[in-house]
This record gives sequence, structure tokens and C-alpha cells, in this order.
Amino acid sequence: MLDYNRRPVYYNTMLRASKKLTILDKGAQIVHKKGFNHTGIKEILDAAGVPKGSFYHYFRDKEDFGLSLLDYYAGFFAQKAQELLRDKDNPALERLKMFFDSFHDFFEANSCELGCPIGNMTLEMGDISPAFRVKLEEIFLMIRRPVEALLAEARQKGEVSFRTSEREMADFIINSWEGAILRMKAQKSTEALELFNRMIFTTILNPSSAFPDT
Amino acid sequence: MLDYNRRPVYYNTMLRASKKLTILDKGAQIVHKKGFNHTGIKEILDAAGVPKGSFYHYFRDKEDFGLSLLDYYAGFFAQKAQELLRDKDNPALERLKMFFDSFHDFFEANSCELGCPIGNMTLEMGDISPAFRVKLEEIFLMIRRPVEALLAEARQKGEVSFRTSEREMADFIINSWEGAILRMKAQKSTEALELFNRMIFTTILNPSSAFPDT
Repeated sequence: MLDYNRRPVYYNTMLRASKKLTILDKGAQIVHKKGFNHTGIKEILDAAGVPKGSFYHYFRDKEDFGLSLLDYYAGFFAQKAQELLRDKDNPALERLKMFFDSFHDFFEANSCELGCPIGNMTLEMGDISPAFRVKLEEIFLMIRRPVEALLAEARQKGEVSFRTSEREMADFIINSWEGAILRMKAQKSTEALELFNRMIFTTILNPSSAFPDT
Repeated sequence: MLDYNRRPVYYNTMLRASKKLTILDKGAQIVHKKGFNHTGIKEILDAAGVPKGSFYHYFRDKEDFGLSLLDYYAGFFAQKAQELLRDKDNPALERLKMFFDSFHDFFEANSCELGCPIGNMTLEMGDISPAFRVKLEEIFLMIRRPVEALLAEARQKGEVSFRTSEREMADFIINSWEGAILRMKAQKSTEALELFNRMIFTTILNPSSAFPDT
């Protein structure tokens, strides 16, 4: 006779995973808004509807939770990056622009608040926790990959023209984008994002006067 | 007969000012390192050697202290900006480069930690406190002024060439610089600052091929 009290192992694992994901999902939202140090574990568990004691079933400590949170954010960017690279209907330069435009729309819908969770975490935790710092730079490199690939494709097809390597240009674009988001939070307008857009896509990448690199 | 217990008013004022400055100076260092929310008032007063109760003689509350701290940081940038504008021995483009180079050296000496206090405060407080946000944008505009003036001078003398206004270029440079500092905190190297330097000063401002704007 089957013992229904002994559920198969995978069921428990899934339940755990799903509770863990609920905590991460609520945590991601609250930390994005309030910052990591400013967010209490209790606040996240309350929002997730998970009993207080169970946090330590899923995470060793708050730092372990924070690192999982970074993975969770990274997953979001990985998904967006894959979409960009898979899309073969649009020119590479246009896809690159779509990538940044989608965030522009997100910020516009959120009163120019929140900012980039990776940028926020870098300024907040980059000096305090070496484990955070290493993972944050891994995420920057992960985001750089599709940007670099799209720049290479755009350059190869003569859509853009610039004098440095695709890797350096990708880093410069990503860093400048983080700076534009930072300034947005002081201006509470999308002005800095639009300035970034104009500077990168109509000037620095030379889209109109594109010619083979000299 | 003179009553030595009743010190002249100006003496009290100077003493107050000097104690207040000590608190701000120690506070500026600690908050630069740990962030505003993460720093306790007690910690600052201990470092300043000022008795616990006296904080509220100088500041209405922690937000009032934070706003005074922003003025204190702003004073530092104002002083640097004046130096730059007063220096008539070097070409404008070189002076602009010196401005960013001096920060590069500071970060190198500080293990690529700390970052920009204005950038840090913007990400940390920009969404939380409207009073902080307004003052932070004022400081960005204050920093933009000398950058814009040097760009105008460099352009007028044919040292640089670019297609946008000096104001927009100044904003783009400042925002990208903030982004480079952010990335520095993830990389723990000055790589992003040097990339910024190369991109702005050897490519985007067209210093070699400078020609009148078309």
C-alpha cells in the first residue's frame, strides 16, 4: 500500500525550490527598491508569506541570500540577452538599441526610480563583500557578451564604424549606461538615458557614415 | 568685572562651527566608505570625539546632517573646479583631462574602493529622499559648469571637435565617468577609468583631427 505521507523526494525539492523562488522574487523587488543593507529578512519573508524560521532552510545567511539574489537578477539579463541574439529579423544595431530602449521604457513606467539592480548592488556591496563583488563583475561580463556580439555583427555588416575593439566599445557602452541610470535617479527624468542613446547610437557608433574601419 | 563664564557670542559660534566641521569631516569619510544608511550617528560622533548628546545642537536630524554632508562634498568639487578654471598655463583640454586624472590617482591609492560620494549618495538616497535628490542634481549641475566651460574653450581654440552642444557633451562625460567609477568598484581595477579616458579624450572629443564644427 502506498504511504501518502511519504511524498516522493522530487516533490519536496520542487516545493522547496518554489518557496525559495518566492522568497527570491519578493526579495528582488524589495531590494531593488530599498537596497540590500536597508532590507530586513523579516520584511522579505512577510512579503513572501513564508514563516520566519524557514529562511535558514534555504539560505546560509543574508550574504548567501544576496548572492542567490544576484543569480536571480542575472537570469533576467541572460534571458533578455538570448532574445536579442536569437532575433534574426532585425539588424544587429537595431537589436542593440532595442535592448537599451526596453530599460528606458521600464524606468519611464517606474517614475525614474529603482535604477539597475546590478549597478545598485555594485555601489552598495562592491567594497564590503568580496563574494558579491566577484559575482557582480561576472554579471557585467555576462551582459557584455551579447553587446559585444551585436557590435561585431553590426560592424561586420557595415552598420557601424568605430576605432576600438568590440569588447572595449561594449564595456564603454555598458559603463556609460550605468552612469546614465545613476544620473536619471538624481534628475528624475529620462533625459540622461536619451542623451546616452543619442551619443552612442547617432554619434559614437557612426551609424550613418558607416564605412569599413581604417 | 568680566565674567569669564560668559564667553563672547562669536567664540561660541566659532566653537560650534569648528565642532560641526569636525563632525562633517569625520562623517564624510565614514559615509564615503560605508554608505549613508549603514552609518550610525554614534559612530560618527565617536570618531569626531564629540559627546553623544551634542549632535542635535548642530543638526535637526540625520537627514539634515546628510544634506550638510552633501554641501561639504560639494565644497570639495567647487574648489577643484575653481583650480581648473583659474589655471591659464595649460590648454583647456589638458585641464579637463587633469580633472579626471586626479580622481584616477585617488582611486588607485585607495584600492579602487569608495567611489564617488555623489554617485554613491544618488543611488542610495535618490529614490528615498526628495531633499537629497534635489541637492544631488544641483551638485551634478555645479560640476557640469567647469566641464562645459573647458569644453567650450577647447572647442573655440580648435583643440577638440564634436557634433553636439558643450552642455550635452559635459553631461555625457560626467554621467559616463560615474558609470566608469561604478564599474571600477566591481572590477577592483582602474581599467574602466582608463577606458573612459581613452574613449573620451582620444576618440569622442576628436583631439587630433580637430577641425571647426560642420
